[in-house]
Amino acid sequence: MVAAAILPELATQLVVPVAAAVGIAFAVLQWVLVSKVKVAPEPRGEGGSAAGGGAGAGAKDGASEYLIEEEEGLNDHNIVLKCAEIQTAISEGATSFLFTEYKYAGGFMTVFAVLIFVFLGSIEGFSTKSQPCHYSVGKTCKPALANAAFSTIAFVLGAVTSLVSGFLGMKIATYANARTTLEARKGVGKAFIVAFRSGAVMGFLLAASGLFVLYVAINLFGLYYGDDWEGLFEAITGYGLGGSSMALFGRVGGGIYTKAADVGADLVGKVERNIPEDDPRNPAVIADNVGDNVGDIAGMGSDLFGSYAESSCAALVVASISSFGINREFTPMMYPLLISSVGIIACLITTLFATDFFEVKEVDQIEPALKKQLIISTAVMTVGIALVSWLGLPYTFTIFNFGAQKTVHSWQLFLCVAVGLWAGLVIGFITEYYTSNAYSPVQDVADSCRTGAATNVIFGLALGYKSVIIPIFAIAFSIFLSFSLPAMYGVAVAALGMLSTIATGLAIDAYGPISDNAGGIAEMAGMSHRIRERTDALDAAGNTTAAIGKGFAIGSAALVSLALFGAFVSRAGITTVDVLTPNVFIGLLVGAMLPYWFSAMTMKSVGSAALKMVEEVRRQFNTIPGLMEGTAKPDYATCVKISTDTSIKEMIPPGALVMLTPLIVGTFFGVETLSGVLAGALVSGVQIAISASNTGGAWDNAKKYIEAGASEHAKSLGPKGSDCHKAAVIGDTIGDPLKDTSGPSLNILIKLMAVESLVFAPFFATYGGILFKYL
Amino acid sequence: MVAAAILPELATQLVVPVAAAVGIAFAVLQWVLVSKVKVAPEPRGEGGSAAGGGAGAGAKDGASEYLIEEEEGLNDHNIVLKCAEIQTAISEGATSFLFTEYKYAGGFMTVFAVLIFVFLGSIEGFSTKSQPCHYSVGKTCKPALANAAFSTIAFVLGAVTSLVSGFLGMKIATYANARTTLEARKGVGKAFIVAFRSGAVMGFLLAASGLFVLYVAINLFGLYYGDDWEGLFEAITGYGLGGSSMALFGRVGGGIYTKAADVGADLVGKVERNIPEDDPRNPAVIADNVGDNVGDIAGMGSDLFGSYAESSCAALVVASISSFGINREFTPMMYPLLISSVGIIACLITTLFATDFFEVKEVDQIEPALKKQLIISTAVMTVGIALVSWLGLPYTFTIFNFGAQKTVHSWQLFLCVAVGLWAGLVIGFITEYYTSNAYSPVQDVADSCRTGAATNVIFGLALGYKSVIIPIFAIAFSIFLSFSLPAMYGVAVAALGMLSTIATGLAIDAYGPISDNAGGIAEMAGMSHRIRERTDALDAAGNTTAAIGKGFAIGSAALVSLALFGAFVSRAGITTVDVLTPNVFIGLLVGAMLPYWFSAMTMKSVGSAALKMVEEVRRQFNTIPGLMEGTAKPDYATCVKISTDTSIKEMIPPGALVMLTPLIVGTFFGVETLSGVLAGALVSGVQIAISASNTGGAWDNAKKYIEAGASEHAKSLGPKGSDCHKAAVIGDTIGDPLKDTSGPSLNILIKLMAVESLVFAPFFATYGGILFKYL
Repeated sequence: MVAAAILPELATQLVVPVAAAVGIAFAVLQWVLVSKVKVAPEPRGEGGSAAGGGAGAGAKDGASEYLIEEEEGLNDHNIVLKCAEIQTAISEGATSFLFTEYKYAGGFMTVFAVLIFVFLGSIEGFSTKSQPCHYSVGKTCKPALANAAFSTIAFVLGAVTSLVSGFLGMKIATYANARTTLEARKGVGKAFIVAFRSGAVMGFLLAASGLFVLYVAINLFGLYYGDDWEGLFEAITGYGLGGSSMALFGRVGGGIYTKAADVGADLVGKVERNIPEDDPRNPAVIADNVGDNVGDIAGMGSDLFGSYAESSCAALVVASISSFGINREFTPMMYPLLISSVGIIACLITTLFATDFFEVKEVDQIEPALKKQLIISTAVMTVGIALVSWLGLPYTFTIFNFGAQKTVHSWQLFLCVAVGLWAGLVIGFITEYYTSNAYSPVQDVADSCRTGAATNVIFGLALGYKSVIIPIFAIAFSIFLSFSLPAMYGVAVAALGMLSTIATGLAIDAYGPISDNAGGIAEMAGMSHRIRERTDALDAAGNTTAAIGKGFAIGSAALVSLALFGAFVSRAGITTVDVLTPNVFIGLLVGAMLPYWFSAMTMKSVGSAALKMVEEVRRQFNTIPGLMEGTAKPDYATCVKISTDTSIKEMIPPGALVMLTPLIVGTFFGVETLSGVLAGALVSGVQIAISASNTGGAWDNAKKYIEAGASEHAKSLGPKGSDCHKAAVIGDTIGDPLKDTSGPSLNILIKLMAVESLVFAPFFATYGGILFKYL
Repeated sequence: MVAAAILPELATQLVVPVAAAVGIAFAVLQWVLVSKVKVAPEPRGEGGSAAGGGAGAGAKDGASEYLIEEEEGLNDHNIVLKCAEIQTAISEGATSFLFTEYKYAGGFMTVFAVLIFVFLGSIEGFSTKSQPCHYSVGKTCKPALANAAFSTIAFVLGAVTSLVSGFLGMKIATYANARTTLEARKGVGKAFIVAFRSGAVMGFLLAASGLFVLYVAINLFGLYYGDDWEGLFEAITGYGLGGSSMALFGRVGGGIYTKAADVGADLVGKVERNIPEDDPRNPAVIADNVGDNVGDIAGMGSDLFGSYAESSCAALVVASISSFGINREFTPMMYPLLISSVGIIACLITTLFATDFFEVKEVDQIEPALKKQLIISTAVMTVGIALVSWLGLPYTFTIFNFGAQKTVHSWQLFLCVAVGLWAGLVIGFITEYYTSNAYSPVQDVADSCRTGAATNVIFGLALGYKSVIIPIFAIAFSIFLSFSLPAMYGVAVAALGMLSTIATGLAIDAYGPISDNAGGIAEMAGMSHRIRERTDALDAAGNTTAAIGKGFAIGSAALVSLALFGAFVSRAGITTVDVLTPNVFIGLLVGAMLPYWFSAMTMKSVGSAALKMVEEVRRQFNTIPGLMEGTAKPDYATCVKISTDTSIKEMIPPGALVMLTPLIVGTFFGVETLSGVLAGALVSGVQIAISASNTGGAWDNAKKYIEAGASEHAKSLGPKGSDCHKAAVIGDTIGDPLKDTSGPSLNILIKLMAVESLVFAPFFATYGGILFKYL
């Protein structure tokens, strides 16, 4: 009955690393193109050429272009020097945050690595004897101690890959921001290309290195494990845990950092001192700009990398106990990695549509260009999935389904991956509908500002709640289809499908904060309002895509968590999770409460961190003479340090909640209760995450709608400083921690608890539930 | 193995109706005592005596008392006449709302009664032939058509009981408000007694009549059913559905009414026209006062009555297929009703502690007196439960547990009821901790107003999220204990335990709006500020107890829903609800989304209804000459009519969501998916309900904390009109729909979906899931 895949093992062994290498090479190419813009003052102006137009623009004479827009007499050394200076400050701030983060992350990694080794090693009393396999009947598998050691190594690998990718992404982002500002002098199209290419560096680097390290790890581990694929892929799950636990630092720590700096800067600067946003006199302004990179680039990157690593691991671990694994069929076993490989190529093609095939010339072409990226990548990838499913899978095979093997066909897997991919697009566009001020929901929220801040908040909260409906139906449909066909393996590959265009998704996402920073630099360098208008236009489009990216991240987190949950249940040897048992039900109820507890913590953290920033900014304004007059320079570094220290400190309680819950519940209450907790946290957390992100996004754009005054309706609510606008600003401030800290952090909560449970599943299954055992 | 209960059947047949009769008689007595306060101008002053002091006060001379506090020359005919006039307006407004509501409720009732009859009758094709019983092997049970008919009758009975109790409760509340105002002239203690007694009328009337009608229905239905207890108690579940579906009108319709009127009155009155709250010149002022009665008295009453009826029905239906039912043991079968009977007596004793054994003399004795009511009733009731469990149950019996019979002991049922009762108390006090301004959480929220409305909102939301933690653990512990011991029957009686002190709970709860109204009447009648201070003190205590009552209502709703869910699953013939099946999981996910959808609807409804009110109030201010100067009277009736009409209209979409979801899911997706939906809605809804109520309560009291300025800290934030206070007012306004509409309405969502599923379970089990059947 079981036929082989068309693609031979050798081809698979080639395709995956080659795709990864192509991805990395493409990232490097983009970086080279961006680097051609010089931030050192070079009045000859040769810098603009390569970044200026991609395919055909290289031949143009950069020098003449420089002059086109430079009629305002600002093309002097000072401006460029100032840009370079600010960029350096932001870059140093970001690096300093990352190194502090790494210190803590390193400590955490060490402790947790020991924990993994001890917990998993203890299962067979640290015995070094081989054991009969669970699923491959009659074969011998490696001892639990080996699994413990390799899980620990995989964990470290995942963590380090996440950190390195995040670091490089942040480096390129802080490298690109000033370059975007300078290019904005030549035109909006050129600035767009720089920002977008830099985003692409981040996207491709992360997607390709994630795939590459995973591939290498599987092959290296395979040298020891040989025929024991059960143990091999059990150990590989550590990779997902490593990637995801670093996302805790990136998303939660970064989320607190960015909003503490933002809120702190605004509360003193805008409210008390009445100076504009990004004013260089504000001591927190550099911290604020660093925060954009820390939260939106490193945070989002580590979040999506975690999802990617986790869904791959979840798929692999289920596959290893299905016919692929039992019959040692390498190519179908590598199906998840093949999907990601094709994804990199699909995204590469997609990127060319933004950088080479078409050119952005006008402000109103930016947003469509970014949205087209999503549609094109989805369409191209659909073909890619079909190809991989046809070549990489036997027509018929069996998948492990909670204790039984289920017969599945390759076209069913195609359906699963495709439904995940397209559900991501649907979620993205619904998110856009609810958060972009081009549509009625946000306009209604803006309109509600007429009757004050209270109605604005009520309407915004209601909008967030409402925006949950369609995404949940989309996720539910994907789950139903993929779950019904090849069970949990289907859910895992559906998640991978949603994440297969991760390179493009991240490129679009990283584009946002780079543009935001570019605007900040323009303001701080004292460039003309025309430059600022252009960077604002770039930033506005970035806001919309950021919201789409968040929707995407949450949707994939939901699918990933379910896949991990399924893998956990399989490995823990549970065949049913029955709501009609007290253990499971109370788990469900308490699990559904955890997102609230966690959100309360993260929101409080932002508040406390922001308060510390407010005090420091006030102190500087009060004690540094000439600061308000612009004759003295503020002490940016202290503000950066405060953000860094407090955000790392404040992430400890929510981090502890996430990391300890599975350990405590699994050890004391057992795997059934833990299953309930995971399911409860998943179904409840995804709702809060979506509604919090969208509410915050809507408030932000309602404010921008009033400020821009682009329609009669918008004008009637404005201008800046009107009562309506003040009400809108209050909403925007409330939304900041919701959309950038507590909302997205919930992704981590639901994923990390699930992957941690999966890694520790053998331990819980053996020793867990001691409270019930001895009561 | 199975021994009989100590209490013989005849004694049970006496105890239940006698307890109900005592409860009704006690309610009438309280009403008579309240009615002795005259609102017609009688300068001889004979009115105050009876209400003045309970047990020993009757002998005092009322005339002399009148003079004690009447030094301000306000004891003239005009004041009393004015109070009477305002009372009449409020009473008429409330009655007009109720009658409009009844018109729609009547239509709904008719349609739904037909639906019940047709759906349930169709199960055996409207056959009039008897069938073999499911659980009583070898016996013959009545035809499905009979069950359909009696379920329909029970439904109507439940609905009518709820409506009548709500109507009478509202009548006494609007009867007592002006009397409280007038008594406040004599002293705070006297006013307290009037308000509290009136609340007690509502509490005892509802508890006793609910019990009485249920008892009579069981006995009358029994005449037809004879030995067929399976069918009898299946039909009785209609009573729960009837009670609960009227709560939809009370809680959701009433919730929209009260906040539309409140927000509408405030937005124009306080904000635009700068006139104080409860100013008689505000055209919406009567509607606002009517709203307090409609939302907090009729709404809360119907909510708790629904919970009571549902938990009784859930317990009875499980008992009927356990050894009690199969062996036809009447006394243990009536255990749920015996608990409620003893509850009435326990509450009666408790009431005497507030009205007769102790006397409230000072303002700061009010809140402790009310809180003591909760503690005393819980303590007394614990003894009562022990008694009933000892006398009313055999020592050993079996309980139906999803397909199997489980052996249970009577002391285990005692534990279940007691844990529910005490969990209610814990939830109540935790709610108080998070919403009373005597403790640090609310004070921190008040303090956050220093940095503006945005931080106030962020801290308030975080507080609400945090306040969920302990109540959820308390509920989880109750569920774990009761579920582990006698399965779903245990959960049902735990819910009954929490609701056994319903008479006292409702008395305390109804006390709040009566005091609130009393303050409004004092203001409108132009009474001195000393009177207003006293009614404000009464009202402040009422705010705290209202929050406690809400926590209580949510906690019991969670237990009730789970019990109903268990009963539904039992009746639908499901033995496991496995999260690891796609049907159940997507049900869980979509179910967890429903509370968000529902909340979005109810919040929008309040907004739309308030907007209509704003327009009308503006219109009156603009078109009625002399209104602002106080020389012309506003048109109160139109405002009342607008509130009434829009609130009924606006409750249709959320109401439809609640009523149609189980029908659609059950019919098209089947009982497994419906199980998932119910579990998801329950575990997600309870969190939002608690957090929304507590966030709103905290904002309300943070504002009051600043206004009262009772401490150095509070003074530093005030006074009224300061920036801090303005920020606090914004929070308070946002909290209004959260705590009084969308939050408490979620109780109805989770309960009503569960009871509806239970009633229609036989239909779904027979015909449900057509989508999966034919796909």
